Amino acid sequence: MSKVLEEVLAANADYVADFGDKGNLPMPPGRSFAILTCMDARLDPAKYAGLAEGDAHVIRNAGGRASDDAIRSLVISYKLLGTREWFVIHHTDCGMETFNNDIMGNLLASSLKTSSVDASGWHDSGVGAGTNDGKFIQWLTISNQEQSVLEDVQRIRNSPMVPADIPIYGYIYDCKTGKLVEVPAVTAAGRVA
Amino acid sequence: MSKVLEEVLAANADYVADFGDKGNLPMPPGRSFAILTCMDARLDPAKYAGLAEGDAHVIRNAGGRASDDAIRSLVISYKLLGTREWFVIHHTDCGMETFNNDIMGNLLASSLKTSSVDASGWHDSGVGAGTNDGKFIQWLTISNQEQSVLEDVQRIRNSPMVPADIPIYGYIYDCKTGKLVEVPAVTAAGRVA
Repeated sequence: MSKVLEEVLAANADYVADFGDKGNLPMPPGRSFAILTCMDARLDPAKYAGLAEGDAHVIRNAGGRASDDAIRSLVISYKLLGTREWFVIHHTDCGMETFNNDIMGNLLASSLKTSSVDASGWHDSGVGAGTNDGKFIQWLTISNQEQSVLEDVQRIRNSPMVPADIPIYGYIYDCKTGKLVEVPAVTAAGRVA
Repeated sequence: MSKVLEEVLAANADYVADFGDKGNLPMPPGRSFAILTCMDARLDPAKYAGLAEGDAHVIRNAGGRASDDAIRSLVISYKLLGTREWFVIHHTDCGMETFNNDIMGNLLASSLKTSSVDASGWHDSGVGAGTNDGKFIQWLTISNQEQSVLEDVQRIRNSPMVPADIPIYGYIYDCKTGKLVEVPAVTAAGRVA
């Protein structure tokens, strides 16, 4: 057993020992909101936004981007589990600012199991349960945080599956201070379309 | 300002006041691993797996599924930020067990901004920065948790972008107890292909 696996299971045993009555929490988020944010290791949405277990849905990917998969999750969150406000939270010093599709294509070209890579992204073979069969992967890199938050809020808003009246807040988490900073362009554009 | 937004910003102010020296954490995860898990409000991966800020990447979506977007995030996590072990963690009492593509199609049919819905999923219009232009969305529902974990570990393993030697652990989080329970089929199939 690896050191990491051993540590995770030991930490989990401590969590179980102190679990209390959390086993009775219902499935729908108690505070009826969802956060879409980055997978970055420095971000702990429960801590930076004050979430207890049972409070809110948390969706995370590289960049906190409004990918189709993130929108899939948000629509399920709304339609089946009753969230009524959403946050899109990117952050300073994001790894997604450090590369682009070409750089990733080159990185992968040296280590792929097969050779069918393309400068514009990886051509998925289409096997399995995914949502992107037969298409190119876009890495969804970021060149400007305010712009990426605005784009993602707009992309969510423009989805035909998203209700027109759900508020979508746009924030940037400052990794130096822990602070959530509002994105003025999102506020100016109106959180509710 | 909504009650939720007010509460989130107040909690964030408390977090900032007590932020300490976390502003100096580096971008790459200090413990070099990543967790893919569900957005469910009852799950707090930092708590159930013992993560401090800076330790590990956390990727979350509806179900904790190995969507193309989750694989995008894992590949970035490995290639650019050095994670070397991955966990796929689904959970008991998951919302993804409560519906299927048909049910979602019907739910959406009554509230869509446009009418081009299909029983097999939503036909995305292809606008914007997504990874799924012009394709049907699969909702990636779950009928059996052990099976969904196994399928997702295999889907990640079979991606041509994923290194053959990275360990991928498969677990189910028990919402009643907080315990991480290993999926025997994943272990039997070999974490390393």
